[in-house]
Amino acid sequence: MTANPAAVTVIGLGAMGTALARAFLDAGHPTTVWNRSAAKAAPLVAGGAAHAAEVADAVAASPLVVACLTTYDATREALAPASCDGRTLVTLNSGTPAGARAMADWAAERGARFLDGAVKNVPEAVGKPDTLLYYAGDRAVFDEHRATLEVLGGDTQHLGTDPDLAALYEYAVGGTLLPALLGFFQGAALVTGRGLPASSLVGHTAKWLEMIASVLPRMAEEIDTGNYREPSSSLGLFHEGIAYDHEVGAESGIDVSWHAPMHDLLRRAVAEGYRDQSISALVELLRRPAR
Amino acid sequence: MTANPAAVTVIGLGAMGTALARAFLDAGHPTTVWNRSAAKAAPLVAGGAAHAAEVADAVAASPLVVACLTTYDATREALAPASCDGRTLVTLNSGTPAGARAMADWAAERGARFLDGAVKNVPEAVGKPDTLLYYAGDRAVFDEHRATLEVLGGDTQHLGTDPDLAALYEYAVGGTLLPALLGFFQGAALVTGRGLPASSLVGHTAKWLEMIASVLPRMAEEIDTGNYREPSSSLGLFHEGIAYDHEVGAESGIDVSWHAPMHDLLRRAVAEGYRDQSISALVELLRRPAR
Ligand SMILES: NC(=O)c1ccc[n+]([C@@H]2O[C@H](COP(=O)([O-])OP(=O)(O)OC[C@H]3O[C@@H](n4cnc5c(N)ncnc54)[C@H](OP(=O)(O)O)[C@@H]3O)[C@@H](O)[C@H]2O)c1
Ligand SMILES: NC(=O)c1ccc[n+]([C@@H]2O[C@H](COP(=O)([O-])OP(=O)(O)OC[C@H]3O[C@@H](n4cnc5c(N)ncnc54)[C@H](OP(=O)(O)O)[C@@H]3O)[C@@H](O)[C@H]2O)c1
Repeated sequence: MTANPAAVTVIGLGAMGTALARAFLDAGHPTTVWNRSAAKAAPLVAGGAAHAAEVADAVAASPLVVACLTTYDATREALAPASCDGRTLVTLNSGTPAGARAMADWAAERGARFLDGAVKNVPEAVGKPDTLLYYAGDRAVFDEHRATLEVLGGDTQHLGTDPDLAALYEYAVGGTLLPALLGFFQGAALVTGRGLPASSLVGHTAKWLEMIASVLPRMAEEIDTGNYREPSSSLGLFHEGIAYDHEVGAESGIDVSWHAPMHDLLRRAVAEGYRDQSISALVELLRRPAR
Repeated sequence: MTANPAAVTVIGLGAMGTALARAFLDAGHPTTVWNRSAAKAAPLVAGGAAHAAEVADAVAASPLVVACLTTYDATREALAPASCDGRTLVTLNSGTPAGARAMADWAAERGARFLDGAVKNVPEAVGKPDTLLYYAGDRAVFDEHRATLEVLGGDTQHLGTDPDLAALYEYAVGGTLLPALLGFFQGAALVTGRGLPASSLVGHTAKWLEMIASVLPRMAEEIDTGNYREPSSSLGLFHEGIAYDHEVGAESGIDVSWHAPMHDLLRRAVAEGYRDQSISALVELLRRPAR
């Protein structure tokens, strides 16, 4: 916490925006909040936040404006009535790299300095020392507001000056979430179908995810060197797993059909001669536009 | 290490079988090895293993026989010439629960005691204190050989007496692997397409996988109670991400089409009224047979 915590405005009080505002309040920052549906401001006001009924007043209240709406489009729509001239605008929503670049252009036209960032965690983790957020855009702007931004998570990083880098990494990193969760839900469907609780999977799956994390450095090296010829896990082994998917699906009655295009990728990779090479060779297929 | 390490036979010297045999040797167990292609035994023989040219001799050499072939079918085919009477057979290959039950029946017919297990890690991790292996089947057999089995990984567990439980959990837990890796490979395709190395993703993705692990207890509780109504991450948020997949795919030229059936699941869940509920409600759809 700095001696005189800087004033900050939070626009958008969904699950994540509320967590952001609460973290600023907890750290002693004078915090102004605005949300399209004003009712969501009430718990924060009870916690000491100032509520602005008009978005223009919210933006005028603080030099630093953190927006956490669903999309960049929603953010521009919400901010339209406000003068952003001289403000620093930080967006923390999900979106595409192209969307982040368009947002940066919009901010520049409005005379605002701009950072685009991403919260790489759930709302409950906001404000914790280990929580990762990363930002892209003007380095001087990041450095100036770093102490305030670190209130949101102790692992606060600047990825680079291209304003779309946070969106790029957000997508590149976040791309494991839905597939990994679906893998877990499928496992939960399977064990609960045998009368065992989903909770009995949690410890094993957590350890399994650690194992996956432990192989990533080697996989990244294979990808960066283009050498897939000394596999620790061969593509062929995954290819043999295709039959299990069908058998377990049939035996248990659970829907494993979401694996079909992954199977297709494995089959195509085997057809291209990657059977005895590393599973990471799949990146070569993903690099080509969808057929 | 026990005072007099028990004799053990390892059948199948692929990447994993070789790692298993090496761990037994390193722990001082008299180790006999057999592989269909005999050449793969050479490095282990150089490390002190006894090589049996015939599988019958390999099985006869030790009371405990650990088999790590590709499948249960391959295991039965390889063991066909051997007398398994009075042996304890442990299979450590991947397979379906039905496959494990058939293997247990086959072992019983041959007069062998039987455990089916799974190595929940890569060959490089075999023998380490944290490495998880779990087993299913007769508890007395597990207890008798526990000290020897723990040589393969310090986190050695018995899941229950049903002989198919290890296969069930192996599939239920392992189901996150290919989807999570594909998510990482897709991210690698994306950042390398911008001239950044895949290695720059590794730390962020490892942290992201930790984040995923941290939400599993809550998701499991939602699934076990059937209450999806207090979501930390709503299904609707993932549903909104569908458009990003298409945009990022189009913008970057990478193939994100393997997400299509996941999108379909999200759309069907929204159509069924789960938009404002937890993403874990997807388990309800997966529980139904594929359409
Ligand atoms: N929740 C998470 O676990 C999580 C994790 C990492 C990143 N994120 C990202 O954080 C962002 C916000 O997520 P969230 O969970 O807070 O979502 P949420 O709970 O659904 O809240 C969405 C917010 O956007 C506002 N909004 C949407 N369209 C608007 C418009 N046209 N004009 C004005 N306001 C509008 C909503 O206002 P109303 O209240 O008036 O509807 C609400 O404040 C998303 O981009 C999400 O991807 C979320
Ligand atoms: N590698 C991993 O990361 C990993 C991790 C966890 C679990 N596993 C599981 O461990 C098992 C073995 O994997 P691996 O990586 O060791 O595979 P691998 O390197 O491909 O080795 C396969 C082994 O099976 C033998 N084999 C296959 N069919 C046979 C048959 N009909 N008769 C006799 N021998 C036969 C092969 O003998 P030849 O040498 O004569 O071909 C070889 O010894 C698989 O079920 C796998 O899912 C592997």
